[in-house]
Amino acid sequence: MSFKHIISRDNPVFKQLKKFADNARERRAEGKTLLDGVHLIESYIDTFGEPDLIIIPEGKSSVEATGLIQALADIPTIMLPTLMFAELTPVTNATGILALVKIPQLPVPEKPAFALMLEDIQDPGNIGSMLRTAAASGVDVVYLSTSCTDAWSPKALRGGQGAQFVLPIVERVDLIKALQAFDGNSYATAMQGDSLYMQDLSQPTAFVIGNEGAGLRHQTMAAATKRITIPMATTALGSVESLNAGAAAAVCLFERMRQASLK
Amino acid sequence: MSFKHIISRDNPVFKQLKKFADNARERRAEGKTLLDGVHLIESYIDTFGEPDLIIIPEGKSSVEATGLIQALADIPTIMLPTLMFAELTPVTNATGILALVKIPQLPVPEKPAFALMLEDIQDPGNIGSMLRTAAASGVDVVYLSTSCTDAWSPKALRGGQGAQFVLPIVERVDLIKALQAFDGNSYATAMQGDSLYMQDLSQPTAFVIGNEGAGLRHQTMAAATKRITIPMATTALGSVESLNAGAAAAVCLFERMRQASLK
Repeated sequence: MSFKHIISRDNPVFKQLKKFADNARERRAEGKTLLDGVHLIESYIDTFGEPDLIIIPEGKSSVEATGLIQALADIPTIMLPTLMFAELTPVTNATGILALVKIPQLPVPEKPAFALMLEDIQDPGNIGSMLRTAAASGVDVVYLSTSCTDAWSPKALRGGQGAQFVLPIVERVDLIKALQAFDGNSYATAMQGDSLYMQDLSQPTAFVIGNEGAGLRHQTMAAATKRITIPMATTALGSVESLNAGAAAAVCLFERMRQASLK
Repeated sequence: MSFKHIISRDNPVFKQLKKFADNARERRAEGKTLLDGVHLIESYIDTFGEPDLIIIPEGKSSVEATGLIQALADIPTIMLPTLMFAELTPVTNATGILALVKIPQLPVPEKPAFALMLEDIQDPGNIGSMLRTAAASGVDVVYLSTSCTDAWSPKALRGGQGAQFVLPIVERVDLIKALQAFDGNSYATAMQGDSLYMQDLSQPTAFVIGNEGAGLRHQTMAAATKRITIPMATTALGSVESLNAGAAAAVCLFERMRQASLK
C-alpha cells in the first residue's frame, strides 16, 4: 500500500478536510463528509461504493482498521500525525480510520406513510440518535427544519450508526409547508394534548418534535392535525417536567410500530 | 452579599471542588456533588433545603442566576475567575452558578413495582437521560451495576434534569442478585426474544438494559425471567442494527405506562 504523508497543517488537502469536519456549509456545498470508524465506512461501502479518500493516523491501527485499510488499498490514502488526525474526528478515542465520501442522495418517497419532522434540534448526537430511532421504527422520511443542526456532521453520523444510509433525510425544510403538504395525520408533541396512546396510527402519520428547551413553535404546532402528549408519572417524591427529545421521539415512533405489529 | 474570592488553583477549597467535579470516588466518599445551573439548584432546594456552598464566576451572571444568588445570600459563597469556574462545569456555555450539595438518600421501596436495571452504561449523559425517562415513566427504583458510570456526576445530573431528586437510585449493585431478589417479572432486552408488545406488564416489572456496544452479559440475561426484543423495521433501503440504550429504555418503560394508562 502506498500513501501520501502529510505533516503540515498548511497543506491544502488537510485544510479542506478540516473544513469538512467542522463546517456544515462546506459539507453541503461540496456534497461530501467524513466517516469515522470501521463500522460506518463498511456500511457506506456496502450500499454506495468506494470512498473518495482514506485518512489514517501515524502509528499502530486497530486490527479491524488494518484489515479495512488493506482491503481499500487502491483508494487514495493519506497519513497524518496523530494530533492532526485527532482534529478531524469527533471522538476522543479515535478508531484509527476516516473516509471522505460523497453524501448519498436517497430517494424521497412521494407519499410518505411515516414521517418524522424535527424542529430546531441543536445537538448533533441527539439528531444522530433520533435518526437511528427513526430508521429502526420504519420512518420513511425525516424532515429537518432550517434551524436544526445538520445530519451529516461526523458527530451526527456517529450517533446515527448508519441510519443516514438507509433513511431519506430532507434538510433545511419549512416545517409548516411540509405539514400542510403531508397527506395524512400529523401529531405535534406538546405538554398539553390528547394521549398518544389514544391515537389510531394506521393512516399515514407524521410526528413533529421540537427543541427540548423551548418546545415546538406555536405556528408549527398549529399546522399539525393534532396536539398529543405522552402521559407521564408523578411519584410520591415528585416528578420530572418532561422527557428529552430523543426519548419522546422513541416513545412516539414505536407506538406506531406497536400498533402495526399487532395486525 | 459577601463572598470569598479565590484566585489560586492551589487553594484547598478549589482543589476539593475540582475533586467533586471530576471524581466519582470522592463524591461517594464525602456524599457530596456539584449542581450546575439555576434549574437544578432550585429543584434541589425545593426538596432537600439549602446547599452547603455557592460558587459563582467573576463578571456578569445571567438574570436568572443573579436572582438565585441574591436569594441565597446567607449561604457561604465563593467567586472564581472564569477559567477556574469553567473547570468545575460540564458545559461549555456555563450557566453562571454552581452549588455544592449533599447527595440525597431517597427511600428505596421494599417491594418495588417497577424497576430499571442498567448494566455497564459508560456515558454520564446517557445515564442521566435514562434516569429522566425512568422518572417520567413511573419507575420506583433504579439499580446501577458496579461497572456503570455514577449517577451523581455533574454531566449525569445535567442529563437527569432533576430525576435524581425524585427517583431512588441504588449504585454498585450486583444485578444478578438484584434480579434474583426481585419479586415480579424481569425482562432482559436482547436481539432475539419475545416481542415487548406481547408482554403483560401489569405485575411488578423490571427491565434490564445493557451497555449498547456489548449488550447484556450472558449471566445477567440468564438471571432475568424472560428475554424480550423490541420489533424493528427493515426498509427497502436497509436497516439499522439496534436502538441506542436510551431509546430502548424509553420504548420499554413507556410500554408499561401505556398498558397502565388504558385501565
